[in-house]
Amino acid sequence: MNRLRVGIIGFGYWGPNLVRNFSSCPLTEVAAVCDASPGRRETVARTYPHIPTVGSVDELLDLKLDAVAIATPVSTHFALASQCLQAGLHVMVEKPLTATAQEAQALVDIADRAGKVLMVDHTYLFNGAVRKIREIVDHGELGDLYYVDSVRINLGLFQRDVNVIWDLVPHDLSIVDHILGGDARSISAWGCAHADPNIEDIAYVNVDYGDRLMANFHVNWLSPVKVRQMIFAGSKKSLIFNELNTTEPIKVYSRGVDFAHTEEERHRLQVSYRSGDVWSPDVPQGEALQAAVTHFADCIRTGQEPISDGRLGLRVVKLLESATRSIRAQGGRVVLGHAAAVRPSVRTAAAGPAALAR
Amino acid sequence: MNRLRVGIIGFGYWGPNLVRNFSSCPLTEVAAVCDASPGRRETVARTYPHIPTVGSVDELLDLKLDAVAIATPVSTHFALASQCLQAGLHVMVEKPLTATAQEAQALVDIADRAGKVLMVDHTYLFNGAVRKIREIVDHGELGDLYYVDSVRINLGLFQRDVNVIWDLVPHDLSIVDHILGGDARSISAWGCAHADPNIEDIAYVNVDYGDRLMANFHVNWLSPVKVRQMIFAGSKKSLIFNELNTTEPIKVYSRGVDFAHTEEERHRLQVSYRSGDVWSPDVPQGEALQAAVTHFADCIRTGQEPISDGRLGLRVVKLLESATRSIRAQGGRVVLGHAAAVRPSVRTAAAGPAALAR
Amino acid sequence: MNRLRVGIIGFGYWGPNLVRNFSSCPLTEVAAVCDASPGRRETVARTYPHIPTVGSVDELLDLKLDAVAIATPVSTHFALASQCLQAGLHVMVEKPLTATAQEAQALVDIADRAGKVLMVDHTYLFNGAVRKIREIVDHGELGDLYYVDSVRINLGLFQRDVNVIWDLVPHDLSIVDHILGGDARSISAWGCAHADPNIEDIAYVNVDYGDRLMANFHVNWLSPVKVRQMIFAGSKKSLIFNELNTTEPIKVYSRGVDFAHTEEERHRLQVSYRSGDVWSPDVPQGEALQAAVTHFADCIRTGQEPISDGRLGLRVVKLLESATRSIRAQGGRVVLGHAAAVRPSVRTAAAGPAALAR
Amino acid sequence: MNRLRVGIIGFGYWGPNLVRNFSSCPLTEVAAVCDASPGRRETVARTYPHIPTVGSVDELLDLKLDAVAIATPVSTHFALASQCLQAGLHVMVEKPLTATAQEAQALVDIADRAGKVLMVDHTYLFNGAVRKIREIVDHGELGDLYYVDSVRINLGLFQRDVNVIWDLVPHDLSIVDHILGGDARSISAWGCAHADPNIEDIAYVNVDYGDRLMANFHVNWLSPVKVRQMIFAGSKKSLIFNELNTTEPIKVYSRGVDFAHTEEERHRLQVSYRSGDVWSPDVPQGEALQAAVTHFADCIRTGQEPISDGRLGLRVVKLLESATRSIRAQGGRVVLGHAAAVRPSVRTAAAGPAALAR
Repeated sequence: MNRLRVGIIGFGYWGPNLVRNFSSCPLTEVAAVCDASPGRRETVARTYPHIPTVGSVDELLDLKLDAVAIATPVSTHFALASQCLQAGLHVMVEKPLTATAQEAQALVDIADRAGKVLMVDHTYLFNGAVRKIREIVDHGELGDLYYVDSVRINLGLFQRDVNVIWDLVPHDLSIVDHILGGDARSISAWGCAHADPNIEDIAYVNVDYGDRLMANFHVNWLSPVKVRQMIFAGSKKSLIFNELNTTEPIKVYSRGVDFAHTEEERHRLQVSYRSGDVWSPDVPQGEALQAAVTHFADCIRTGQEPISDGRLGLRVVKLLESATRSIRAQGGRVVLGHAAAVRPSVRTAAAGPAALAR
Repeated sequence: MNRLRVGIIGFGYWGPNLVRNFSSCPLTEVAAVCDASPGRRETVARTYPHIPTVGSVDELLDLKLDAVAIATPVSTHFALASQCLQAGLHVMVEKPLTATAQEAQALVDIADRAGKVLMVDHTYLFNGAVRKIREIVDHGELGDLYYVDSVRINLGLFQRDVNVIWDLVPHDLSIVDHILGGDARSISAWGCAHADPNIEDIAYVNVDYGDRLMANFHVNWLSPVKVRQMIFAGSKKSLIFNELNTTEPIKVYSRGVDFAHTEEERHRLQVSYRSGDVWSPDVPQGEALQAAVTHFADCIRTGQEPISDGRLGLRVVKLLESATRSIRAQGGRVVLGHAAAVRPSVRTAAAGPAALAR
Repeated sequence: MNRLRVGIIGFGYWGPNLVRNFSSCPLTEVAAVCDASPGRRETVARTYPHIPTVGSVDELLDLKLDAVAIATPVSTHFALASQCLQAGLHVMVEKPLTATAQEAQALVDIADRAGKVLMVDHTYLFNGAVRKIREIVDHGELGDLYYVDSVRINLGLFQRDVNVIWDLVPHDLSIVDHILGGDARSISAWGCAHADPNIEDIAYVNVDYGDRLMANFHVNWLSPVKVRQMIFAGSKKSLIFNELNTTEPIKVYSRGVDFAHTEEERHRLQVSYRSGDVWSPDVPQGEALQAAVTHFADCIRTGQEPISDGRLGLRVVKLLESATRSIRAQGGRVVLGHAAAVRPSVRTAAAGPAALAR
Repeated sequence: MNRLRVGIIGFGYWGPNLVRNFSSCPLTEVAAVCDASPGRRETVARTYPHIPTVGSVDELLDLKLDAVAIATPVSTHFALASQCLQAGLHVMVEKPLTATAQEAQALVDIADRAGKVLMVDHTYLFNGAVRKIREIVDHGELGDLYYVDSVRINLGLFQRDVNVIWDLVPHDLSIVDHILGGDARSISAWGCAHADPNIEDIAYVNVDYGDRLMANFHVNWLSPVKVRQMIFAGSKKSLIFNELNTTEPIKVYSRGVDFAHTEEERHRLQVSYRSGDVWSPDVPQGEALQAAVTHFADCIRTGQEPISDGRLGLRVVKLLESATRSIRAQGGRVVLGHAAAVRPSVRTAAAGPAALAR
């Protein structure tokens, strides 16, 4: 079978990772790299002498391609992705999908009409630990979920165009959407800006998923220490994902509390405490982006819907947009509409829109 | 000099600690323990055969006392404390001071009129690490503060009468008030209840202290792991207080970011990063409650205002009250009035209201 | 049933813990405390007004006692214990049992002839984690053991009469004897003295248990950090006991290596690596000394042999004596004789020598 | 100035790192790679199309080279290095320098006679943390050193030709030699073999450096966890180097003990304890091998003696040889002769033997 010919658009911070992974994936080859900067095109030529470079998307579309992967600033995602989809290409876009929910919705519609695969590069969904966590949650090990608490802080790379929410919360939102389903009811956010008055560098985002399930995300570019930790607390067990613990990234705790169920129990004792083992499952190694790239190729070949499809990307952008609205309203809660798809539609891969044409 | 004769009201969870510490303090003696429960009075009699017990405050006030320490449910604080103050006794009250700001204000006024010491047992203010942190902040080591982030979570003791905010946030609020001064502008809170629909067991509280300084407190009775950590991030250095690290509870980080100051710098590069040493100062050992009890006795003898006086206690209760209002309003921000005293008044101990009568 | 009447000999560092635990154990009561120092007897009188004190063992033996617990300097253990055994009392002795192996052997013989219980207070054998580890090893979870490595270091309390080996290695030796059986073949030790030229303050002790199983103990009074960790590495799994990790003191690792078994396998690949889960079993809480005291009382009542009987105490003293001989010989290996009992005799509690007389 | 033309001998495990670092160093270029295996030569050709490959050292010596770097099995080091030195090339050799002390001594003599640079690739000496530790020790911060304790354990790569001592202890020995000077008096070792009866996979090595300074190294291929930690305990302060702590690899502890100096003090109290701060200095980043390669080039150009010269390499090999002798003698202590150079000769770079010919 021929390798899928993929064009990479944008060779800045993330583009080199895409080139490396599309090159090493047996299902794909990098047919060309597109970047407006001559300096970057030279870097490509020096490092990958066999890969042609072009300076514009029009030139890129003249080449015989199957797909593109877009790693440009978020404000350009919509225009580039829609042009490529309409030119008949499958498209993978860096997260977040677009700069507005309206754009994201439009892109989803264009992909549907074109019958092409639209995938968002929410790389965390292909991380071995995140897959293992979803497995554990799906098997019901945790019982009913009580809350998700995430801390993702560091002396971060200050961005010039987006705040810390748009930079970091897409990771958390995509993980929670993937594991719990995407039915967020409302969102609320607080933040503070120190370097640039318009760009929050520390923020707290709170999402209500209904059924007394709350998720809270602390993101921060101004922390003296790096923390990347998520707690998933449940009625049966609780789980902590500490990405920086390379040997035991996931711990599942049996200890917890049991609530009184009857009025009588409640009068006697509201809760009872239980101790228990801690279990740290083995997590498969391997680069997440390699798995993402392979999944993109698989979806193109088989027509299945990607795990991180345009609809998930849209749900994430909606939440980011609403979080920003809340932060400007000093933490007021923004109620979300009906467009946020519920979990089942995320799960079933079923008959995808895309049949491979070649 | 004679020891101050102190009566302890309430011998439940905290009372035994008060009896032990007022007994071992060379400035005080426990003249009596008051508890309505015969069983608890028996426990006192068995453990401390020489300490008389009484079943009511009226009986207690018949004894010749200098002061009382009150460790009863918060709803009873106002009535008990005001009765004792009006009977001419100095009063130490468990945190939080009262169940409402109105009560707290009234108590402060009563103490002022009576010329007696009113101290709230915010024990953390007498913790060696907290004292060291205040020293470091006062010396300007951290520069301008950017934010405070506190995480105080555990499989906590579920309370029947107060939610997790009233249970745990007083610790953080008193520490921040003591270290930064008490000038909170507004407060906002989110929470979730699982065991009892009226009692939040997990909450996030956000306080705006003006000047782009935000404090955020995560409190939680449903965490599989115990965390007690506060970040104080500043323009020069940042500090982390990890209470569970017994050998290095405080770490001061020189690493950080420097912001561009001129428009030109900002165009070139928004921020620059600096690395640096980490320093963990030696922290004096010793039980905080012993220091608190000694401070109470000192204030009675010298007439100075306690570090954790009624005004600080009032500011804390105001914030707790406002946080609850916010949580019921789904996170809406509650702007605080003018009563919150500014920092200078916290710092100066000056001419206190209380002259020792005996 | 009447409580056993126990006399405590020695009220220095450890004696108060014995008094507290024999007092709170429902099977025993403290009938008297014996200490030559008037000051210490006064302390007893103040803290435990109902417990009589005496200044000599002769006086103590005039009282009607069932047993004694001895917590005096090691050089006095033999004389005190043999006197009490011969007076018809059951005896618990602080670790190490005696100052020489000859004394220990004599004590074991005296106890046998007297038909009384002789127990050494190797408290670690009653620690919940150590019990759990023995359970795991007994169930064969670890497979064949490859080595035991222990690190027990701290800014320790410098002793005047014994070196760091006699102070700390009894803990490790008793644990390993209890878990693996006591069949040590030879021992070797290195050490260094800094404060007092005759008292080593840092040492490494290496014991050969045969079958390619080696145990190594690092003990040290001069470490800037406190470490208490033991590795038990086995062919199937490995276990780490970190006593200072209060929430996960035991971790069982599935990861490891598999060795080639046939010559052919060996030519191809000597070992293969396997990854796997980490499991941290729940460990029962509770003070180890309380369990030890209860076990002593149980053995007296039922006639069973204590887990930490005189023979185990003797094996430990033999190894300590040999380690000191090795250290003076600059690390030369000391081969042990046949007296070290093999494991089965440790395990079976069977028909003990002591029938309860009262 | 022209770049030094370097030939790389051996493209197995370490060779690729040498090629990468000699390529990126501005002072050097890789003139050719030599490996007997056609498959490996092909790998070189594919990855570095511009670098010529040869199959034998004779072919390599036909090229116009300034220096070689040798990364072949240790048994071949002597023959290859002596051939290259005698051909007039400067030589860098992987650690350990040779398989026997006799070979090492011969190589040092050959290099001296040839007036060429002989450097051993003890990469750790170019590690930022090790440099910082030497700085701290040289400034006298730690006072007199009491002991060095190193733990270097992991599920290690089992070697077929050398035991765990020859694999891992060169790291520790070179670090200690560099920081403390090389005057070891005697050495003793214990070990155990599980996979192959002739190849120890766990070992403890103890070196006496005189003046009551002892160093102990625990090396192990059979540990369920990875540890790389060295303690340097001194009379004033102590230092811990934890290589796996990426943010605070070095911690300097002020806490410690002070010994009695007079007989009177000793009678009263043998030692007194002091608490104190912990300080974690900032450690410069950068790949150690890049610094090593640059140092090699500098020494060639300037004629200075390398930090890790042949004499240091010889001292390390002598200790490894003696350790193996000790392990076979069941831990007997091996006294070292006079050849171990004392520290001053390590420190002074002075007039090196090598003047750059080109």
